[in-house]
Amino acid sequence: MKKIILIKLGGSLITEKDKPYTSRDDVINQLAIEIKKIITTKKDTIFILGNGGGSFAHYPAKKYHIQDKTKKDLFGYAAVQDGAAQLNRIVVGALLKQGIPAVSLHPSSFVTASGGVKKAFFTDSLFGQLHNHLTPVIYGDIVFDEKDSYHIFSTEALFSLIIPELRKEHYQVEKIIHLTSVAGVLDAKKQIIPLISQQNFVEVKKHIFKTKGTDVTGGMLHKIETALSYAKNGIPTYIIQGDNKQKLLTKLLLNQEVIGTTIV
Amino acid sequence: MKKIILIKLGGSLITEKDKPYTSRDDVINQLAIEIKKIITTKKDTIFILGNGGGSFAHYPAKKYHIQDKTKKDLFGYAAVQDGAAQLNRIVVGALLKQGIPAVSLHPSSFVTASGGVKKAFFTDSLFGQLHNHLTPVIYGDIVFDEKDSYHIFSTEALFSLIIPELRKEHYQVEKIIHLTSVAGVLDAKKQIIPLISQQNFVEVKKHIFKTKGTDVTGGMLHKIETALSYAKNGIPTYIIQGDNKQKLLTKLLLNQEVIGTTIV
Repeated sequence: MKKIILIKLGGSLITEKDKPYTSRDDVINQLAIEIKKIITTKKDTIFILGNGGGSFAHYPAKKYHIQDKTKKDLFGYAAVQDGAAQLNRIVVGALLKQGIPAVSLHPSSFVTASGGVKKAFFTDSLFGQLHNHLTPVIYGDIVFDEKDSYHIFSTEALFSLIIPELRKEHYQVEKIIHLTSVAGVLDAKKQIIPLISQQNFVEVKKHIFKTKGTDVTGGMLHKIETALSYAKNGIPTYIIQGDNKQKLLTKLLLNQEVIGTTIV
Repeated sequence: MKKIILIKLGGSLITEKDKPYTSRDDVINQLAIEIKKIITTKKDTIFILGNGGGSFAHYPAKKYHIQDKTKKDLFGYAAVQDGAAQLNRIVVGALLKQGIPAVSLHPSSFVTASGGVKKAFFTDSLFGQLHNHLTPVIYGDIVFDEKDSYHIFSTEALFSLIIPELRKEHYQVEKIIHLTSVAGVLDAKKQIIPLISQQNFVEVKKHIFKTKGTDVTGGMLHKIETALSYAKNGIPTYIIQGDNKQKLLTKLLLNQEVIGTTIV
């Protein structure tokens, strides 16, 4: 079994929250350096990366009322697709600079939807990239929807689509890591909730803070709900802060204890 | 029948030949303005655009010996994919600036190959974009090849893959236009050859000049051979200069006579 770890670089972590189309290049470059070291160390593991849209995708999505089904704006569709792809280029560029053979996997070119759920999903390119020992980088994107014109699939939702396909091809998805701009899931007292499971989710839901910033894909609640669906397949998710100097990602991958939220 | 015209913006037209990763933004912007006017005028016609790789794709392809099957370089694969996608973003950005709802269609995410020919081709995203009245912009790209690790599909080759799919869905492909950095196909005396067909191709082949610049997809001969294959399906190709102030594209689409090469 080939081991796989999926890592999401959160959009609000790698872009400036209040500045449209502005990436935090220092954060992205620091993450690229850390990921390069990890890939070099853990040679038995395949990494699939994903980046959120941050202010590159959420800003045009808001501007063109993309979430308002009564105001379908096809120019807005194009603008969101462009913004999402722009940020993905910046992320891939930073990874290439560190010598990682990173390749984009563009969701709007290989996924379509029907009424907000997957209609078709072309997996040949993904498996080709994995076969070639490349590091795929997907991202939250706007895709064609045969009922609703278009649908936004977040990086989390795309991970949900990819995981069963990976399992079918006998890849073992070991864990999912979300690098976010916060230290984990916070409760009403701004304390980190260390563990979330089906058992305590109803209670947790009452107390969690909404994540800041413009996010048309649902913020932290969306992350938790998607993570609980991964957990049903035995795949844990770790939500940790990505923009600090503590190298939490490296520590987590070396099985050291890190501050953050685990969802099982 | 929905009428379709495919237009290729040649890579050596829209990038600086001798400068890697340098786009000719003035040329791209001028073309975007012209295309906007054409789309507004010809409301009964759907346009699919494509851009070549120019110095964005051909430079890394040469650097990493992408065409040398004995020196497979997977970092090179990633670098070529990145370069091609970078230029496509610039082109799409210029089209969006003119109000065209341009969307990228990324070949490496929806096409795979086997021994240099198409293996799988996911058409749902393309037809979704057309259904949504968006303007797809494809580009020459490096894709997974199950036998040769990877394969470069030029924009021309991708048009060849797309045309039969369009016809199956009852789109009528009216013509193909190549906007190039030269005024047409030139003979040994640097005179434009006005008409190329199966009948005179053998003779023409002896006399044509190779196009200048780094081009790993075969240059002018490749364009002609691909165009002759379109012609077998009754689709003419026009090779005209794209970087002049004569608005040849507009004139051609208004059925005015223009200088260039027609391949039938």
